[in-house]
Amino acid sequence: MRAAVMYGAGDVRIEDRPDPKIQQPSDAVVRVVLSCVCGSDLWPYKSMPATGTGRPMGHEFLGVVEETGSGVSGIRAGDLVVAPFTYCDNTCDFCRKGLHSSCRHGGRYGLDGVDGGQGEAVRVPHADGTLVKLPVGADSALLPSLLALSDVMGTGHHGAVTARVGNGDRVLVIGDGAVGLCAVIAAKRRGAEQIVLMGRHTARTDLGRAFGATDVVAERGDEGIARVRDLTGGHGVDKVIEAVGARQALDAAFGTVIDGGIISRLGVPQYEEGPVGPSMIMKNITLTGGVSPARAYIEELMPDVLDGAIEPGRVFDQTFTLAQTPDAYQAMTDRRVLKALITL
Amino acid sequence: MRAAVMYGAGDVRIEDRPDPKIQQPSDAVVRVVLSCVCGSDLWPYKSMPATGTGRPMGHEFLGVVEETGSGVSGIRAGDLVVAPFTYCDNTCDFCRKGLHSSCRHGGRYGLDGVDGGQGEAVRVPHADGTLVKLPVGADSALLPSLLALSDVMGTGHHGAVTARVGNGDRVLVIGDGAVGLCAVIAAKRRGAEQIVLMGRHTARTDLGRAFGATDVVAERGDEGIARVRDLTGGHGVDKVIEAVGARQALDAAFGTVIDGGIISRLGVPQYEEGPVGPSMIMKNITLTGGVSPARAYIEELMPDVLDGAIEPGRVFDQTFTLAQTPDAYQAMTDRRVLKALITL
Repeated sequence: MRAAVMYGAGDVRIEDRPDPKIQQPSDAVVRVVLSCVCGSDLWPYKSMPATGTGRPMGHEFLGVVEETGSGVSGIRAGDLVVAPFTYCDNTCDFCRKGLHSSCRHGGRYGLDGVDGGQGEAVRVPHADGTLVKLPVGADSALLPSLLALSDVMGTGHHGAVTARVGNGDRVLVIGDGAVGLCAVIAAKRRGAEQIVLMGRHTARTDLGRAFGATDVVAERGDEGIARVRDLTGGHGVDKVIEAVGARQALDAAFGTVIDGGIISRLGVPQYEEGPVGPSMIMKNITLTGGVSPARAYIEELMPDVLDGAIEPGRVFDQTFTLAQTPDAYQAMTDRRVLKALITL
Repeated sequence: MRAAVMYGAGDVRIEDRPDPKIQQPSDAVVRVVLSCVCGSDLWPYKSMPATGTGRPMGHEFLGVVEETGSGVSGIRAGDLVVAPFTYCDNTCDFCRKGLHSSCRHGGRYGLDGVDGGQGEAVRVPHADGTLVKLPVGADSALLPSLLALSDVMGTGHHGAVTARVGNGDRVLVIGDGAVGLCAVIAAKRRGAEQIVLMGRHTARTDLGRAFGATDVVAERGDEGIARVRDLTGGHGVDKVIEAVGARQALDAAFGTVIDGGIISRLGVPQYEEGPVGPSMIMKNITLTGGVSPARAYIEELMPDVLDGAIEPGRVFDQTFTLAQTPDAYQAMTDRRVLKALITL
């Protein structure tokens, strides 16, 4: 099969790889229909040391089940399924608590002999626990939004869940990338009254407004904090969803959140230490969030996609073929593309 | 009246002060029956620069209402009342959310012309919002435990509430001071299955066992972390209540908490920055806690004190007269006394 493999920073190649085969009774092989490039794929694209062996890329995909192992009972060949961005057994103590990202038998695509999602087919471990059947055909116009359940929409939702966004909340979403925009969808879906989106790419913040952002703040640093305070009558916001990962974004979160408020981080921090001193204690600020247990949220979010209540697939603003995947990486790195959809 | 005033590190004096009088319609004057010394009183006792004016001390007291302002309707002269350690209106937006520590009209005793609690009488602002009537006589044996509702018990409870301690949880309490011991009470009260108390003063950890601690860890640092992991079958704990404030204690919290777990801090941090980098995100750890809104918890906890289900007053291990208050500060600083009760 053909698949995307990264050999170092700026070096993504489409090459022949062995066709995946069932190795364990709990495996399934999925023929990929749609995949995409994640913001987190850009980190190694910018910094990975050159390697002779390469690493299969991609962790968001939906496709048709081709074959299942003898222990798989929940899905069967021919089913159209979506995969969350980590595989999981859906039965361990962490999965039972809804923390599938910490599954005791889980793992990541592209590692440990498991294929990446940017390729023609993927062997999916723990297929019964991981894959969720989609009640639409492979020609449905909803596929991009259903693909978003594999990562970005579930990640934005995780931010709103862990920030405990509820009716009437004033919410700040920091970052106009695909995750930030999905966090806007999630905050609105949970009843936020005011959603301030901090970002400076007009095309993206316009989509954020379409998703439910009531205000946009282009300023950063102290100016951005002052602007958010102005927009909230001087009070600050009840909840912050931080979808960038920069220290400046964390400082903006602490600078705008009201006493008793919650900051949920979705962006992987580019720092090791943060401002958790006496001020955080005096104000009773909570710092939460993390890697999304995307699998936990698929059943909850899917009905809203199916009935059109949410359209996270709108974050995909350009479509590439698998052969064009290297161009997709570069286009996202150059910020010419928000999120690249890959059709197979 | 006589009251304790601090003039600098190691310099607490009992002196004559003006008798408090009603200044605002919402004031009450309370004749103090019981007061005590807080661990936080020891910070200025160790470090306050010498001053000629002095600062009235103490923020935990219960007593009899002597006089009320014209706007006070909920309490009246003769009532025995307990005061939370900050005063509050109990009506602002923060108070309505249960965050009385951030009350928009609240403040601290001993500042802004308000008396301290270590004295014969206190003018209490926002008396209707602040004071809670006690359904016992001034000779009740329960008074020390009711006094604990003014701070330590409400603070320990705040740790358990913000850590969302629930049935079956494995909880680590770091610190065997009065707050840590009250956190043990609170964790047990909320159904924790295993409560590991980290502390090295045997008399205190013995009281912790009496309060419900199932295990005691005397080790600190990496040894302490390893011991907690051993005691929890290698898993770590679901929740940590950190009642010390040292960076080593925070590191122990992060080192022992399980994926998806919660760390609640009650000790005011002696550091400005903490370890909130990628590992916290990958494990979905929540960092919460803060200054307790003690007023919010008095009604909930009082029935348990009245029926003897909890006995937080056992943290008072020595009684002093008001005149002996300077000795009480020194005894607590020397760790000869866990928490000093002051009778008036």
